[in-house]
Amino acid sequence: MTPAALEKRQRRDALAIFKASLEAALPARGIERLLRVDEGDLHAGPYRYDLSRYQNIQVIGAGKASAAMAHALEKLLGRRISGGLINTKYEHLAKLRRVELNEAGHPVPDDAGIEGTRRIAQIARDAGPDDLLIALISGGASALLPLPAEPVTLAEKQATTKLLLACGATIHEINAVRKHISAIKGGQLARLAAPATLLALLLSDVIGDPLDTIGSGPAAPDDSTFQHAWDVFEKYGIIDQLPDSVRHRIDAGRRGEVPDTPKTGDPCFRKTRNLIVGSNRLAVDAAAAKARELGYRPVVLSTLIEGETREIAAMHCAIAREALHSGRPVKPPVCFISGGETTVTLKGDGKGGRNMEFALAAALALDGIPGILAFSAGTDGTDGPTDAAGAFATGSTAARARTAGLNPQQILARNDSYPFFQKLDNLVVTGPTGTNVMDVRLLLAGAPKP
Amino acid sequence: MTPAALEKRQRRDALAIFKASLEAALPARGIERLLRVDEGDLHAGPYRYDLSRYQNIQVIGAGKASAAMAHALEKLLGRRISGGLINTKYEHLAKLRRVELNEAGHPVPDDAGIEGTRRIAQIARDAGPDDLLIALISGGASALLPLPAEPVTLAEKQATTKLLLACGATIHEINAVRKHISAIKGGQLARLAAPATLLALLLSDVIGDPLDTIGSGPAAPDDSTFQHAWDVFEKYGIIDQLPDSVRHRIDAGRRGEVPDTPKTGDPCFRKTRNLIVGSNRLAVDAAAAKARELGYRPVVLSTLIEGETREIAAMHCAIAREALHSGRPVKPPVCFISGGETTVTLKGDGKGGRNMEFALAAALALDGIPGILAFSAGTDGTDGPTDAAGAFATGSTAARARTAGLNPQQILARNDSYPFFQKLDNLVVTGPTGTNVMDVRLLLAGAPKP
Repeated sequence: MTPAALEKRQRRDALAIFKASLEAALPARGIERLLRVDEGDLHAGPYRYDLSRYQNIQVIGAGKASAAMAHALEKLLGRRISGGLINTKYEHLAKLRRVELNEAGHPVPDDAGIEGTRRIAQIARDAGPDDLLIALISGGASALLPLPAEPVTLAEKQATTKLLLACGATIHEINAVRKHISAIKGGQLARLAAPATLLALLLSDVIGDPLDTIGSGPAAPDDSTFQHAWDVFEKYGIIDQLPDSVRHRIDAGRRGEVPDTPKTGDPCFRKTRNLIVGSNRLAVDAAAAKARELGYRPVVLSTLIEGETREIAAMHCAIAREALHSGRPVKPPVCFISGGETTVTLKGDGKGGRNMEFALAAALALDGIPGILAFSAGTDGTDGPTDAAGAFATGSTAARARTAGLNPQQILARNDSYPFFQKLDNLVVTGPTGTNVMDVRLLLAGAPKP
Repeated sequence: MTPAALEKRQRRDALAIFKASLEAALPARGIERLLRVDEGDLHAGPYRYDLSRYQNIQVIGAGKASAAMAHALEKLLGRRISGGLINTKYEHLAKLRRVELNEAGHPVPDDAGIEGTRRIAQIARDAGPDDLLIALISGGASALLPLPAEPVTLAEKQATTKLLLACGATIHEINAVRKHISAIKGGQLARLAAPATLLALLLSDVIGDPLDTIGSGPAAPDDSTFQHAWDVFEKYGIIDQLPDSVRHRIDAGRRGEVPDTPKTGDPCFRKTRNLIVGSNRLAVDAAAAKARELGYRPVVLSTLIEGETREIAAMHCAIAREALHSGRPVKPPVCFISGGETTVTLKGDGKGGRNMEFALAAALALDGIPGILAFSAGTDGTDGPTDAAGAFATGSTAARARTAGLNPQQILARNDSYPFFQKLDNLVVTGPTGTNVMDVRLLLAGAPKP
């Protein structure tokens, strides 16, 4: 195969592999795959629910993909669903017959979100021991399921998050605080729902799929405590800058005057189950299957990849180069696959996203080396503030760029990957995909048999 | 196996695996493995030299390990060696009978180095068509084989390098300039040696083992030109700041008034061969063999790893965690192995090296996760300005540190990994190893069968 033909082939294959991973990660596909109704029983993964036992089946939840999830669930359960309410992002809709949709603000929560969440909490509170609640949680649920614990207001909650971000608190620290100024997060939905049965179906957009973090874990035991939240305030010395309501609540909580979030073993979880219906792992596994079908040896490196994008890209390329050069760890043609979500430390004011930056750093790491294509794209179809999902690059990309008057090093320094790949026609454009399970990265090395 | 027993087992195994990789990378072992004398022929890898054809066999060269290489060569060829001269770093000695040792400055070249290199060049120049020259090149040879092209002085050459470093030139750009103000680098030793036969034995300390970069490639064709060197000066706008002698030489060279370094196909290489007798690949392969022997599935990720140490460490840990968690890409017990050499962007004033920083970043990435040990060490036995080769960490390391009053995050921010691991007794200490083929990293996941 000529270098140009190989590039063309790898480009087509990478797009096909990504498409397969997207399809596998659609929440509707996950619900169809994991849930079925058989002789009056609802089978949900390892769990079984005798539908004749339940008086009402209510569907609640929040997230960017939750309308699509509700649609799949209505297809499955039809008129068995009594009703329910979902908070979804503006314009992230689906045609529903039984479950009401409430459009709300994301990424910044708004009053519509609070109003919807109040009604969702009321549905949970009203449910009795003979009711089944199915909660649909997907990416964005932290913002789309806002219910500050009274008397904390939404504005005060947001001010607290801003303060924590500004002082460099980790995402775990921020979550510990957020759960303790919420009336629904950190397992508190399960507490509201008890004694009803609660089945939470989760589309995971978090590395490692931790139940207590996806959508702030409304149906999962919470390890963190009021004392942890207070420790975070002390660690960063921000106690005096907090809204009074927040400071008072956390302080009262750590002194035992407010019940803490429910912990593992809490009776409220007796009839609660969490089931992941979509995740990065599924997307990556589907990519591996498709890569094999197309003639590549698939090697899943990890679904837990995080870190500074350009460094992670360079290491991916070092692995692919080794395979091409020495056949280690496996002989080409090989398709290395990884998932997770990297970060970009912005240094310039360019336009781009982590996936396009990955491809740009790969263009430099592969500069002049034939036989390898690097591909990175977000499964939600949106990389950074752009209309592309990601981009791809080969050993000839940097040379093509220079011929076009572009300096890849300088463009990487400016974080300006979008116009770079737009000009080279190397963008991956999918439009909104209906799912969000982080990113998929592919390194194709060598030519598969024709 | 209890977590503590597993940690102990993995620690012992990692040290044994590293030891095996060190032994495989000893230059003497490489010479013993690749070279043999059989019926009057010297077999050197794929090359064969009829020793009866040569009037004189002279051994020349430079590098930190070159004395040890000469020792192995004397064992092999004995009295067939007529003589020769090696530039070695002060105190990096071996007992030699026929080859003279000349101690010289490293990493800063000195007059002793120049004097030795002048004599080496003279040996090469004096060699006739019936002579065999064996050049022994190892890490440090760029500094230990200094011969500025007249009238450039050593001080002027060093000033030029400093200037290039200060303006952010890449290592490739610096090498292009250095080869063109040298009288021996960039293949010029081969030109001096012709019409004699020249066999260069290389211990590689460069990622990817490029013949034109190891020791500045004295016996290898040079792709770069005087014009390239001049372009570098123009790119960084430093023409006016260069020593006159340097500017004049490069300018004269690009106008064709000085012969350029010899290129591929130059007749001077007709009787020249380069053979790598030690490399990171060998070390990594030996590690894989030892890991298998100890019950782990070995997976060589890459020998081409470079980049910011803490990010590279996190990605290694993400790969090992995936394997432990989901059996991808292979089921545990597994030993991931990588080679190459990372860098550390210093932000603090602590004491440490890239390998210890790798282990410290791994301690954070693995914090609280049992079953994995991360290990990183330099094959020369010296990590940064310390007496340790590297360090190792597990999921319990960060907790042990906190108990001992150490804050791993803060210590990583200060680049202060040496005292950290010293206190925890997690240093890898080997003393000088007699070789230098960059670093070996190991991620052990899971328990091998007892």
